[in-house]
Parts: sequence; C-alpha cells; structure tokens
Amino acid sequence: MFRKLLSFDETKQLLEQSFSSVPVGEERVSISDVHDRVLAQDVVSPMDIPPFSRSTVDGYAVKAADTFGASEDKAINLRFCGHVAIGEAPAVTVKEGSATEIVTGAPLPDGADAVVMVEYTSRQGNNVFVRRPVARNTNIMTKGSDIHKGETVLKKGRFLGSREIGALAAIGLTQVVVYKRPKVAVLSTGGEVVEPGKTLPPGKIYDINAHTLSAAVLECGGEAINLGIVPDEKDKMKSALELALVSADVILTSGGVSVGPKDFTPQVVDSLGKPGVIISGVAMKPGKPLTIAVVNGKLIFSLPGNPTSSLFMFIVFVRPIIMKLAGRPEESMPKVKAVAAQKMFSARGRRTFTMVNLTYNKDGTLMVSPVPTGLSGAITTMTKADGFVEISEKQQFVDAGTEIDVYLFKKLKKP
Amino acid sequence: MFRKLLSFDETKQLLEQSFSSVPVGEERVSISDVHDRVLAQDVVSPMDIPPFSRSTVDGYAVKAADTFGASEDKAINLRFCGHVAIGEAPAVTVKEGSATEIVTGAPLPDGADAVVMVEYTSRQGNNVFVRRPVARNTNIMTKGSDIHKGETVLKKGRFLGSREIGALAAIGLTQVVVYKRPKVAVLSTGGEVVEPGKTLPPGKIYDINAHTLSAAVLECGGEAINLGIVPDEKDKMKSALELALVSADVILTSGGVSVGPKDFTPQVVDSLGKPGVIISGVAMKPGKPLTIAVVNGKLIFSLPGNPTSSLFMFIVFVRPIIMKLAGRPEESMPKVKAVAAQKMFSARGRRTFTMVNLTYNKDGTLMVSPVPTGLSGAITTMTKADGFVEISEKQQFVDAGTEIDVYLFKKLKKP
Repeated sequence: MFRKLLSFDETKQLLEQSFSSVPVGEERVSISDVHDRVLAQDVVSPMDIPPFSRSTVDGYAVKAADTFGASEDKAINLRFCGHVAIGEAPAVTVKEGSATEIVTGAPLPDGADAVVMVEYTSRQGNNVFVRRPVARNTNIMTKGSDIHKGETVLKKGRFLGSREIGALAAIGLTQVVVYKRPKVAVLSTGGEVVEPGKTLPPGKIYDINAHTLSAAVLECGGEAINLGIVPDEKDKMKSALELALVSADVILTSGGVSVGPKDFTPQVVDSLGKPGVIISGVAMKPGKPLTIAVVNGKLIFSLPGNPTSSLFMFIVFVRPIIMKLAGRPEESMPKVKAVAAQKMFSARGRRTFTMVNLTYNKDGTLMVSPVPTGLSGAITTMTKADGFVEISEKQQFVDAGTEIDVYLFKKLKKP
Repeated sequence: MFRKLLSFDETKQLLEQSFSSVPVGEERVSISDVHDRVLAQDVVSPMDIPPFSRSTVDGYAVKAADTFGASEDKAINLRFCGHVAIGEAPAVTVKEGSATEIVTGAPLPDGADAVVMVEYTSRQGNNVFVRRPVARNTNIMTKGSDIHKGETVLKKGRFLGSREIGALAAIGLTQVVVYKRPKVAVLSTGGEVVEPGKTLPPGKIYDINAHTLSAAVLECGGEAINLGIVPDEKDKMKSALELALVSADVILTSGGVSVGPKDFTPQVVDSLGKPGVIISGVAMKPGKPLTIAVVNGKLIFSLPGNPTSSLFMFIVFVRPIIMKLAGRPEESMPKVKAVAAQKMFSARGRRTFTMVNLTYNKDGTLMVSPVPTGLSGAITTMTKADGFVEISEKQQFVDAGTEIDVYLFKKLKKP
C-alpha cells in the first residue's frame, strides 16, 4: 500500500508506531571479546572486593590499642612476629604486644586491626619500635569495602570499555551477557553498478553504497551482511530480499528508488509480506525517494542510489533504530554551534540536510558553509564535509550570521 | 641505570627524546576490513568520476541550441530518437533536431550537450515538445567533474570511516595501504594475581590490569597481545619479557613496581638490553612507581599494580605513543570545562590526577567533584568516574568555584 509523501516528523512517528525497536537478543561473550558491547543484564558481584582485608601500605600489622601513646620521643616496643607476603594466606596471628611485617596489598593477619606505616617504625632484631599511634582500621582496605558480594557492579545497558572490563575481571568473571549485534543486510540494486575491482563496462559505475552502508552499520553497533549487487530483475531482487529476511533483522537496499522505468524495488518489497510498504517518499532533501517497509516484523529500507542521499537517510532514520536494536545507550551525533557564513536555503516544504564545512574566522568564531562542490551526487561532497546542518521545512533559509547547530562527522579541531 | 624522580613534564620530554614514535609499518588491507584504520599513503584516483558524462535528471538529451526560444506558449518540436537506459552504453547519437529519452544517471549519448527535464516536455508519437530552453551542460554531471583521474582523493593520515570507504569504492579500489596496528604485549606480574575464572586461593585477587590495559590498547588503535600473568620469579619474568620483545612493539607490565621485597621488574627490564631503564619514578599521583625502559628500540612500561594508577599512567604516557605508532591523527581526550563543587587538593610537588564525577546544578552549571569512594585502589572509583582532572604540581589545590578542564571518559549527557 502506498501513502502520500510524508513530512520528516510524520515519517519518524509512523516508523516508531510500525516497528518496535527493542534489542534483538542477548548472548554470552568472553570478557576478552566484550569490548564495545553493551550489558544486557545487571552484573552482580559473586564476591567481596577486596576478598580479604588488606594493607594499603608497607609496614607492621598490629593491634591498634597497642600503639596508643606512641610518639617520636616515646616509641612503643612491640615484639616482631613474622611477616605476611603479598598473595599468601598469613601464617601468623597478631597477639597483644606483637607486630607482623606486612607489604602493600598483603592480607591482614588475624588479630591485627591496623597497620603502622614502615616510615614510623624501626626494627632491631625482634624489637619493632612504633613512633606513631594508629586508630583501628588505619591503612587497611577492609574486605568488601570496595564491592560487597551481591552488589550490582555494572548496570544493564552499560557500554563496555576498558574500565568496565577491568571491573568484570576484578570480580572474577570470564563471560557476561551482552546484547547481540543486530544483523543488517546491505544490498545494492540498479543495472548501472559494478563491484569495485571488476572491469567497468561503458555506462556503468562502481557500487559505493554497499560499502558506505556496511561501514556505517558497523559504526553504530550492527553487524553488516554485505549481499553485494543484485541484478536489476524482479525475480532476483525478490529472492535476494527473501534470503535477507531470513538472515537479517534490518535490510537496506539502495538504488532503484527513483522514477525511472526499472524501479520496481518498492513493488517487490510490498509483495514480500505484511504490512509491506508503510512509507513511500519523505518530504526531505536530499533523499526524497525513500521506501520503508515492515515485512514479517523486519524493517526494509529502500534508500536512494545517490551516495550522499543514501547516507543522510541512513543517519536520520536507520542509525537510531540499529542503535536501539543493539541496546546501545541513546546518543545523538556530536554537534557544535556555528555561525552561517552565507545564506543557506532549504528546499520548499522539505526538511533539508546540507553537507557543510567548518572554519574559524579571524576573531575565532566558528563559521559554517555548504561544501563547495556544487555537484549533486558528488562523492567528494561526502568526503570533504566536516558535518551537516538540518534546516526545518518551516524555514525558507538560514540567514548569514545566524547561529545554527552543526552535526559533526569527526572531532572538531580547535584553531 | 636509575635516575632521580622526574617531574611529569621532564618524563614526557625524556620519553620523547629516547624513543621515536613513528608508525610501525604499512600493510595492504581490503576495503571491507579497513574501517577504523588510517591511510598510510595518499589515495590517487585511477579514473574519472563520473567515468562518463551523465544525466542528473529524467528527461531528453538534446543539443542545447535546438531548444533556444522554447517557451510554455511556444514549444519546440524535436524528433524522438530512441532512449538511453541507465548502466548501458548509448546506442544512439543525438543529431540536430532530435531528442533522446534519458533517465537519471544514464550516460549522455554522443552529440547531446544538455538534458531537458521531463517536466518541461511532452511526447506524442515521434514528436517531443520542449517548453523550456536549456543552456549547454544543463542537467549533466560531466565526466571527471567530481574526481578527475590522477587527483588525490584521500590524503595519507586520513582516518577511514564509512564516508571514506565509500570514496574508495567509488574509484574502484578493493585494497588500500594503511598503517599497521602496533602490537602491544600486556603482562601482569605479582604473586597475588590470579586469572579470572580460576579458584581464588586465600590472600590472592583476580588480575584486573591485563584486561583493562588490553582493552585500552584496542581503544587507541593498537593490537593487544595479552600474555597473562607471569609468575613472580626473575627467570620467568625475563623469559616472558624476551618473548614479548620479539613479538611486540611496546610492552606493558603491571604490578611489582612498588617497594616490596619481591619487586624486581625494573632490574630484570634493565638487564634485557640498551639503553635499559630511562625513567624510574615520576612525580605524579597516582602512579609514582613507574619505570620506563627502552630496550633494542622497543618501549617497556612497568606500570603499578593498582588498577586506577595503572590506567592513569596508560592514559598520560602510553596512549599518545600507541596512537603515533598506529599513525592515528593526534587527538587528545575530549574535555569540558566545569566548576569545582569542592576544594580539590593536589599532592605536594606531584602532578595530580583525580577521578571525578560531573553533575549539573540547579542553574544548569556543570559541576565537578572527586568520585566519592574515598578508597585508594578501589575498582569502583574507575567505573564510577565520568572523567578526570589534572592539577599542576605548581598548584596546591583547585578552589571550590574555580573553572577547570575535565577530561571525559564518555560522552557528556546534557540535563
């Protein structure tokens, strides 16, 4: 079923109503491979951290009461009573009037309730002279004081980087349950595209979108299945999409959504299952020829062949959904405010996205202007852009000198 | 050879003088695996893009001169002369007085020098009525106008993301030369550490650093070789380091760099080759017990066992070097300015790094305060932190209400 051209916001809304973007699943992954993944369950510590009370200094483990009254002038004499090495269970018990040598990180021996730093002690044979008093628990990290058994260490939804992986190791875990990466099938259509590396016959161009989109899928937490180029025949397109529906959670086709005589992708998509095409055409620029279908609970985006249009469509519609399917924390693209260096026009009645460059002017103001290629469909527009601006369909233009949000493709370099 | 405790800046300088951080090498990688890598050579286009002049609209390819004088009232009648499909070499030549049907993206047939949009035409049998004049090159993207053969498309040092990979595909490349990922061996020392998953004997703790550091290496473009835990014996440590020197560009050990009796890592490192230990102890907090050695042109960092100290050492000294060895564009950690919610002290005479939390107060000001664990060596300090602050050794403290830079571990969430 085809509907009228929808506005950008209507498209977003209808998309949200028609497809439930919940994480595609969970899997157990080794902590050595878990970097860049997202926790699907709270991680509860199976143990106390530290697992035993440990000294935080080199010195002597004592009964604190034995040190009361000690001073530089009047050292208290305790009996030397062995030592505790790091990584070993203490073989000694600290009794009244005794001191056991201990190093940083070693377990506190039974009987001791404080550690005197080595700097405030001296030893002569079996005599340990203590020149400062210590209160109970001084220089001790008590068992479970960092993390106690049963405590939630990391919450569901937490992104796993180096610091989080360290915490998982600390509590002895070798695996955790993370969200599966959604599988995104990427296929290119159109009789004019050829796989890079092959000889280019006259009238044909190399396929760009399958490569751009596969990398873009990776960048937002998905797993791309690059199905390559599907020949411009209805039956072959149908078979390819049927295969994609079996193997992927989201399907991206590109090309073949223009008005030319061979553009049958929407019809094929619509024939695959219910409800079929839910969005056909969006009032935005670039990228009007967009078709979105829901087939048997899976999403099919038919993106335009123009690489820049296709990438914009991906950024605004597909990326947020893949992130949700991957259980990734919501995160918009980084943006900065910049001043329009020139008047930038929007397309009448259409949400307009324009690739831009950023420069600092003499007084240090960040200025924004459209990428000066002037060519529709140019590859270099995409590679030369620092980011893009979004102009509402309610605005005719952004006037020179106006401040505007710029979404960044890469980190901004200060002048 | 051991030297005196160096300041933070002296350490940075000496490190720079003693080790040349240039990319470790280059390799040819398929464009399907090249995401997140950095170009080691300029990429020059072997072809024109587009490879032929193509129509940017659906319409009729004509000789522009034939349309002069056309208007809504007075259509010019041209002879219909076949059509050009997308992806096919045109079989027709456009002669004076004729018009060839063409679709967006199709190659311009010989003889034509402009395209009239279908909207401004109508057809009756073999008559094509043109109601608007077009100038030469209208609605045509001429051969090579986006990228010309021999043009540098992407420069050496360029980070490869989705947009760049699209450009590589556009010019038909299947492989490019990128910088090799530096190999970083990571090993943990100390008799107290046990690999996660194994039973924890009394007095022992799970190894954290090998896991944190391996992930941190990955995050800055390196390839981690996790050599696991090396037993606390001189000979075994020496063999492990010799193996690491053969297989890695940089070696990170952690643990065993305190003042306890078993801390022989620096001595072992110093015995491996020239010049040996160049830095032994840095006036910073946390992380004083740091040893840096250069052995046969490779760097060995002996980091402290304390996970937070070890991570800070990695961030300030190791990370920038790995990024240079990986040929990555220079990039400091993201930072924001925030107001100190409380007085934050520095350690006398030492560059102080403190894990912090960020919060917005009622009037929307971003406030920064130390992570409130209060435990030295706590794992949770690392996981609870939003970032860290750096306080100069020349300052005694940062007063409450002062604005200070905060380096971010993750993206800041606006309130």
